[in-house]
Amino acid sequence: MTKYSVVGKSVPRVDARDKAAGRAKYAVDEDLPGCLVGLVLRSPHPHARIVHIDTGRAERLAGVKAILTARDAPLPPPKRSSIEQDKRIFARGRARFVGDELAAVAARDEDTAGEALELIRVEYAQLPAVFTPEDALKPGAPIVPEDGDNIAGSFCLTRGDVDAAFARADHIFQDELETQIQNQCYLEPLSCLASYDVNGRLTIWISSMDPSGVRLCLAQTLGLPEGRVRMIQCNVGGAFGGKITMLPIYPICALLSMKTGRPVKMMNNREEEFIATLPRVPMVIDIKTGFSKDGIFLAKETKVLADNGAYMDKGPRIVIKGTVLPDNVYRVANIRSEGKIVYTNKSAVGAFRGFGTAQLTYALETHLDRVARELGMTPQELRLKNFTRPGDLTAHGWKVGTCGLKECIEEVSQKINFGKIKSHTRGLGVACTAYDCDNRQSADFGGSVAYVKISEEGKVQIISGEADYGQGMRTIFAQMAAEVLGVSMAEVEIPLPDSDYTPFSQGPWALRVTVSGGNAVMLAAEDAKCQLLELAAHMLEANVKDLELAEGKIQVKGSPGKGLSLAEVARYAIFKPSGSAIIGKGVDEPDTNPRDPKTFYGNSSRAYIFGSQVVEVDIDRETGRLKILNISSAHDLGTAINPAAAEGQIEGGIATGLGLGLTEEVLYNQGAVLNPNLVDYKVPTAADMPPIETILVQPYDHKCAFGAKAIGMPGTILPPPALSNAIYDALGVRVNSLPMTPMKILKCLERLGTEV
Amino acid sequence: MTKYSVVGKSVPRVDARDKAAGRAKYAVDEDLPGCLVGLVLRSPHPHARIVHIDTGRAERLAGVKAILTARDAPLPPPKRSSIEQDKRIFARGRARFVGDELAAVAARDEDTAGEALELIRVEYAQLPAVFTPEDALKPGAPIVPEDGDNIAGSFCLTRGDVDAAFARADHIFQDELETQIQNQCYLEPLSCLASYDVNGRLTIWISSMDPSGVRLCLAQTLGLPEGRVRMIQCNVGGAFGGKITMLPIYPICALLSMKTGRPVKMMNNREEEFIATLPRVPMVIDIKTGFSKDGIFLAKETKVLADNGAYMDKGPRIVIKGTVLPDNVYRVANIRSEGKIVYTNKSAVGAFRGFGTAQLTYALETHLDRVARELGMTPQELRLKNFTRPGDLTAHGWKVGTCGLKECIEEVSQKINFGKIKSHTRGLGVACTAYDCDNRQSADFGGSVAYVKISEEGKVQIISGEADYGQGMRTIFAQMAAEVLGVSMAEVEIPLPDSDYTPFSQGPWALRVTVSGGNAVMLAAEDAKCQLLELAAHMLEANVKDLELAEGKIQVKGSPGKGLSLAEVARYAIFKPSGSAIIGKGVDEPDTNPRDPKTFYGNSSRAYIFGSQVVEVDIDRETGRLKILNISSAHDLGTAINPAAAEGQIEGGIATGLGLGLTEEVLYNQGAVLNPNLVDYKVPTAADMPPIETILVQPYDHKCAFGAKAIGMPGTILPPPALSNAIYDALGVRVNSLPMTPMKILKCLERLGTEV
Repeated sequence: MTKYSVVGKSVPRVDARDKAAGRAKYAVDEDLPGCLVGLVLRSPHPHARIVHIDTGRAERLAGVKAILTARDAPLPPPKRSSIEQDKRIFARGRARFVGDELAAVAARDEDTAGEALELIRVEYAQLPAVFTPEDALKPGAPIVPEDGDNIAGSFCLTRGDVDAAFARADHIFQDELETQIQNQCYLEPLSCLASYDVNGRLTIWISSMDPSGVRLCLAQTLGLPEGRVRMIQCNVGGAFGGKITMLPIYPICALLSMKTGRPVKMMNNREEEFIATLPRVPMVIDIKTGFSKDGIFLAKETKVLADNGAYMDKGPRIVIKGTVLPDNVYRVANIRSEGKIVYTNKSAVGAFRGFGTAQLTYALETHLDRVARELGMTPQELRLKNFTRPGDLTAHGWKVGTCGLKECIEEVSQKINFGKIKSHTRGLGVACTAYDCDNRQSADFGGSVAYVKISEEGKVQIISGEADYGQGMRTIFAQMAAEVLGVSMAEVEIPLPDSDYTPFSQGPWALRVTVSGGNAVMLAAEDAKCQLLELAAHMLEANVKDLELAEGKIQVKGSPGKGLSLAEVARYAIFKPSGSAIIGKGVDEPDTNPRDPKTFYGNSSRAYIFGSQVVEVDIDRETGRLKILNISSAHDLGTAINPAAAEGQIEGGIATGLGLGLTEEVLYNQGAVLNPNLVDYKVPTAADMPPIETILVQPYDHKCAFGAKAIGMPGTILPPPALSNAIYDALGVRVNSLPMTPMKILKCLERLGTEV
Repeated sequence: MTKYSVVGKSVPRVDARDKAAGRAKYAVDEDLPGCLVGLVLRSPHPHARIVHIDTGRAERLAGVKAILTARDAPLPPPKRSSIEQDKRIFARGRARFVGDELAAVAARDEDTAGEALELIRVEYAQLPAVFTPEDALKPGAPIVPEDGDNIAGSFCLTRGDVDAAFARADHIFQDELETQIQNQCYLEPLSCLASYDVNGRLTIWISSMDPSGVRLCLAQTLGLPEGRVRMIQCNVGGAFGGKITMLPIYPICALLSMKTGRPVKMMNNREEEFIATLPRVPMVIDIKTGFSKDGIFLAKETKVLADNGAYMDKGPRIVIKGTVLPDNVYRVANIRSEGKIVYTNKSAVGAFRGFGTAQLTYALETHLDRVARELGMTPQELRLKNFTRPGDLTAHGWKVGTCGLKECIEEVSQKINFGKIKSHTRGLGVACTAYDCDNRQSADFGGSVAYVKISEEGKVQIISGEADYGQGMRTIFAQMAAEVLGVSMAEVEIPLPDSDYTPFSQGPWALRVTVSGGNAVMLAAEDAKCQLLELAAHMLEANVKDLELAEGKIQVKGSPGKGLSLAEVARYAIFKPSGSAIIGKGVDEPDTNPRDPKTFYGNSSRAYIFGSQVVEVDIDRETGRLKILNISSAHDLGTAINPAAAEGQIEGGIATGLGLGLTEEVLYNQGAVLNPNLVDYKVPTAADMPPIETILVQPYDHKCAFGAKAIGMPGTILPPPALSNAIYDALGVRVNSLPMTPMKILKCLERLGTEV
C-alpha cells in the first residue's frame, strides 16, 4: 500500500465532525418561511372497503391548510421500468394493511395537524384479510391487489441438468428454513420538505439512497415534467436499503405543498416506521442438494415462498437475486431455483442490506453445515473442496476476476480454531458469502458521471450525483481525488447531490458506489490533472511530459526548484484572459451485460466480493441465552480505500446480522404490528456487540479504480448462518427459523431431549 | 425584430411570480437550526478615542453567546487590488463617524442581543471632528484616517492642449454646482446568514451584486483560504450599487459564527441603512468651458471636490469615472480634469447608480444649457453641433461603435416641442448622457463564463455566476438561451449563484452583465446546440449539416416528418452507454483594453450606450412646488432583449433621478444623520411618478450578443440636469445645488426679484 499517499489510509470521515457536533443538516432541519407540517391518516384495519371519508370537521379546524384523500391524488400508480411499484399515493377503494395511507393533512403545526387527523371520519366496511403467503395462495382467499391473483411475482430458473445430477449424487439432503420480517431501524425516520413554487416547480429535500431515481419516479407519480422537480439530498441518518425507492411520504408532501402553495415538512414517527415502511422480505426456503460421496457439490434445488405484503416494491427482484447470489460461492453446475412472492394484508416489503441474500445465505450455509457433518467433513473442508476460484465462470454467468475466498476461509479458520473447543455449551460456526459490485440494470447507461473542479487556492470539488447514505462514500471519493491530484483531504470538498447541479446517477444497486462512482471520480480527477499539467507547461514554458504533480506542486521532473503550486495554476486558469476554472470530467461505463431478465444469467458486474465469518458462542442450556464470545470476519474487498471505514462497515453489518439472527422480528397479530417501537423490538445495541476481529483480504482488481471492489453487504449476511452453525456445534440442535431466540433454542433442546 | 422568437419580446420576468407571491427567499428568510441573531454596537460620536470597552455585564446576560470587539477581529484591513477598502472590521483606537462599528453581539434572539448592546459600556474621549472636505483640507484639521493626511484620493488628467484651446475660444463659461448625499434606499436592508462549520468552512448567504468578488474579499479579510468560503446568493431586494462591495456586516456575521460555532443571522435596521452604508458621493464641481462663437466645444476644465466620509470604499474611483464619462457625449478634444476626495467624520460613500456620472452629468449638462442660451442657440442645437458620432474615437479613448445619440436627441425633441410653451410657470429641459458597457478592469480575465446544461425533458439550465440584483438579468439570460435552443421560456431555469457550483464572475462593473454575461450564455447555448445536433445526427443516421433545431425539435431540413424532440436527444445523451447530460460552455472575453491607471485613457468597453431626456415642468411661483408634466426619455441600448424590462429599468432609474434632483438628501448635524428613516427622507413614491414616455433606439451592435448593449444607468443620470434646465426655462433661475427643493427655488426667485 506504500504506493499511495491517501488511498489505503484510515483518514477520518469527511462528515464525521459535522455529525458528531450535531451540525449536519438532515431533511427535518431544513426550513422555509411559512412552512406547514404534514401528517398522514392511516387505516386501522388490515383490509376494509373505504365507504366514505368525511373531512368536513377537520377542514373547519383553524390552522388546517389542506386535507388530501385519494380523490385529490393523481390517478395512475407510480411506474418505473426498473421498479414495479403498484402503490397509489393514497389507498383507493380499499385499505389493504394496517397503516395504509388514507388521507393527509397540512396544518400550521403538528398539534393542529394531529387534531385534524382525529376529526376525519372514515366509514369502513371490514373485509376478510389474509396474513400469510400460504393462506393467500388458498383457493377463495381474499384478493389483496387491485386485480388478478395474490401472486406478486414468481420465477423459475435452471442451470445444467439438475435431475441427472441428483440421480448421480451419492447423498441428497433437504432442509426447510424460515426467515422473519426485520425492520431497518435507521436512526433518522423518513422525512422530507417539499416546496412547490409559483412557477410550477417542485423542490424537495430528502434523505434518499437514490436521489436521481426517486426524482424521476416522483415526477412521474405527480404527473410533473422531470425538469420541474428539483431534488436536494440532505444528510442521511441511516438507510440500509429502506430509503432506496420512492416512499409515499414524498408524493404526499409534494401534493400538500402543491395544494397549499406553501412549503410542507413531514416526518414519520417511529410507529409509522414500523407499520408503513418496507422491511425485509420474510421467506420460507426449501433447499435440497446432491453431493458425491467425496463431498463434491453436484446439484441444488431451492424453493422459496415469500411474503410481499399489500403492495409491490422490490419484493420479486429480492427473491430472485437473493436466491441466485449465494450459489456463486461454489462450483455447482446444476441448479434449479423457483420462487413465489405473495400479496398479504401486511405492510409491503423491500430492500434491506443483502437484498434477499441474507435470507438465502442463511438457508444455504446452514444447510451446508449439516451436509459437511453428515459427510464426515469439517465445514471448512467441504467449502474448500467446492468454493469458487479466481477466473471461474459460475453457473449463473459471473466471470469471476479476483477472488480471495480461499484466503478468507483460511484466515477465519486460523483465528478461531475448529475442533479445539470441547464443551457442552460452546460452539463454532462458519459461513461464506459472495456479492456483486455493480449489477448492471440494462444495456443503457450503466456507469457513473463525475466532475472534479479546481477552484481558487487549489481547492478540489467533486461533483457527483451518487448518494452517501451513511456508508462513507464522500470520504472514499475524496480520498480518490486527493490521491490523483496529490493534495491533502482538507483540500477536497464533496457537496451533497442537488439535481440542479450534480449529474444523474444510478441508484446504489448492489455495491456499485465505490466501483462505478469512484471510478468516475478517479477519471475526472485524472482529467483535471491533465488540464493542470498542460496549463502549467504553458506557464513554465516547459514540455508537459517533463512535469509531475506531487504534494500540491507541479514541477519539472528532476528540477525541484522550478515549479508552481496547484493554487497558482488553478488561479491562473480562472483569472487569465478567457479563463475559467478547470473542470475535469469522468465517465465510468463498465464492460458488463445486464442479466437476462428471464433466466437471470449474466455477468452484470465488473467485479465480485467474497467473505467468510466464524462465530464462537456460549449458550446457557437452562435459559437458552446465547453469548457470542468472538467473531472473526474476513473479507475480500479488493483494495480498502479506507481500512477503518471498511471495518466500520463490517462491524455495522454484523450488528444488523446479529439482530437478524438472534433478536429482531416485527411481530404481527391479525395484521397489526405488536412491537412498533424500539423498546419491544430488539435492535442490538453497542452493549450487545461481541469482540469482532475483521480481516481485510485485498487482492488488487484491475477492473476497479485503485483496485477497490466493495464491502457493504457481507457483514450482515454472514452472522445468521454462522450463528446457526455455532448453535448446532454447541448443542447439536438446529433452530430452523430466524430469529434464533432463547425460547426457540430451549424448544429444540426439549425436542432433542424427547428424541433422545 | 421578426428574426427572433423570444429575444426582443416583453416576456414576464422569470422571478416575477415568486416575488409577487412573497415566495422568493431573501437572505433573511434563510434559516438553520440553532441560528443566533447578531447586532452591532455603533459609535454615537463622530470622532472619539475609544478608551475602554467593558463587555462584562453583557457577557453575563443569559442568552448571549458571543461579544466581539476590535481585539477579536483579524488585524489586517481588507485589501483587494481593485477595491481599496481601508475599513477594519471594528473601529480600532478611534471611532470615526456616528455609526462606526465598535462591537457585535450574537444572542439567542434579537431582544437579548439588543439588551446586551445596552449593557456594553464604552468609555470615549471625544475628539475634534471635521464634516466637510473644505474644513478637512485646512491646516491643522483633525486627521480622519489611520495615518497620512485627509486626502483619500486625487487625480489630474489632460487631453489635448487645454490652455491653447481656451486661448482661442470666443467664449468662456464657468459654473459651480453641488450635489448631495443620496441613500440607495433599497427595500431589502443589508442582511446575511453565516455558518462556520466544524470543518473550518464558512458558508454565507448574502444578497450581493458581486458574490464572487465579495467572497474573495471576505476570505482575505477573515484570513481564510478562499476555498473555505462558500457564498450562496439569495434574491436581492434592490441594490443600486449599495451592495457591490464587502460591507462590515458580512465579516462581523462570519466572525460571530466562527466564535460561537453556530449559524448567525444579521440584518440592518433602516436607521443603520442611513448611518452606516455607502451612499452617493457628494461633490462640489467647478466647470469651465471654452466655445467658438458658432458653438463649437473647444475646451473643458473640471475641478471636483468630493466628500469620502470616514473610510475608503470606491470614492476615488467614482470621482474619476464620474468626471470622465460625461465628456464622451461630445467631440471635445481639449480637457483638463482634476479631482480630490477628502476624508471627513461622516459615513463612507460608495457606488450608487451612475458611479459618479450622475453628479458630473448634472454639472456638465446644466452648464451646457446655460452655454446654449448665452450663445443664442437652443439646447438641442448646441448638442447636435457637438455630439459624438458612430465611429468616433473620443478624447478619453473610447472607440465608439454604434451610437444612436442623434436619434435620441431628435426623438425627445419631437415628443416635447421646444419653443411652443409660453407660460411663466412652465419649462422644458434637456440632457444627454453616455455610458460604457463592460469597463475592463485589468489585462487578466475580463469576461464571463457560463454553462448551459440540457437535462431530462429538454430542460435548459443556465449556470452563471453573474448576479441578478433586481435588474432582471436572469430573464435576459433565459431569453438568450431560449432563443438559441429554440425552446420556450418555461423550459429554461437559471438558479442563483452558489460558489460551489457557479463559475467566478467579475462584479457588475459598468453595465457588463448583459454584454459579457449574456454573451457567455449565448456561446454556451450555441455549444450545447452543436452537441445536440451532433447527437441527433448519430441517432437519425443523418449528416449534422442537414439538421435544424426549431421549436423544441431537431429535424432534417426539408423533411419535417423525420425528427426528434429536444427531450428525446437530451434523454438519450444521459441514458446512453457512457452517457452524461449535455453541458455547453461559453467563455466571453471582450477585445478591449483596461484604461491606463494613471491617465484613465483607453477603450475598456466593447460598446457604449447613449441617451437623452426632456422634462417638462410646471412650478408654483408662490410655493416653489414643482410638478413634472411629462418626461420623454430616449435610449440607445442596442437590441432590447426584453423591451418591457428595459422600460422598467428606465422608469426605475428616473424615480431615483427625480429623488436625486428634487427631494432626497441625507442631512447631517455635527456628524449625526437627522433624517435616518423613510418618513423624513423623501424617496419618490409611485404617486410621485410623472407620465413617462420611453423611446428605445436600437442600433444592432455586432460586438454584442444579439446586438444588445445595456440600459442600467441613464434613467437615473438624466433627470437632475433636465430638471435643472426645465426650472431655468420656466423661471429664468438656476438652482445650482441638488436637491432642487421648493425652498431653494423660492430663494432663487427672491434673489432674482432683488436683482431685478
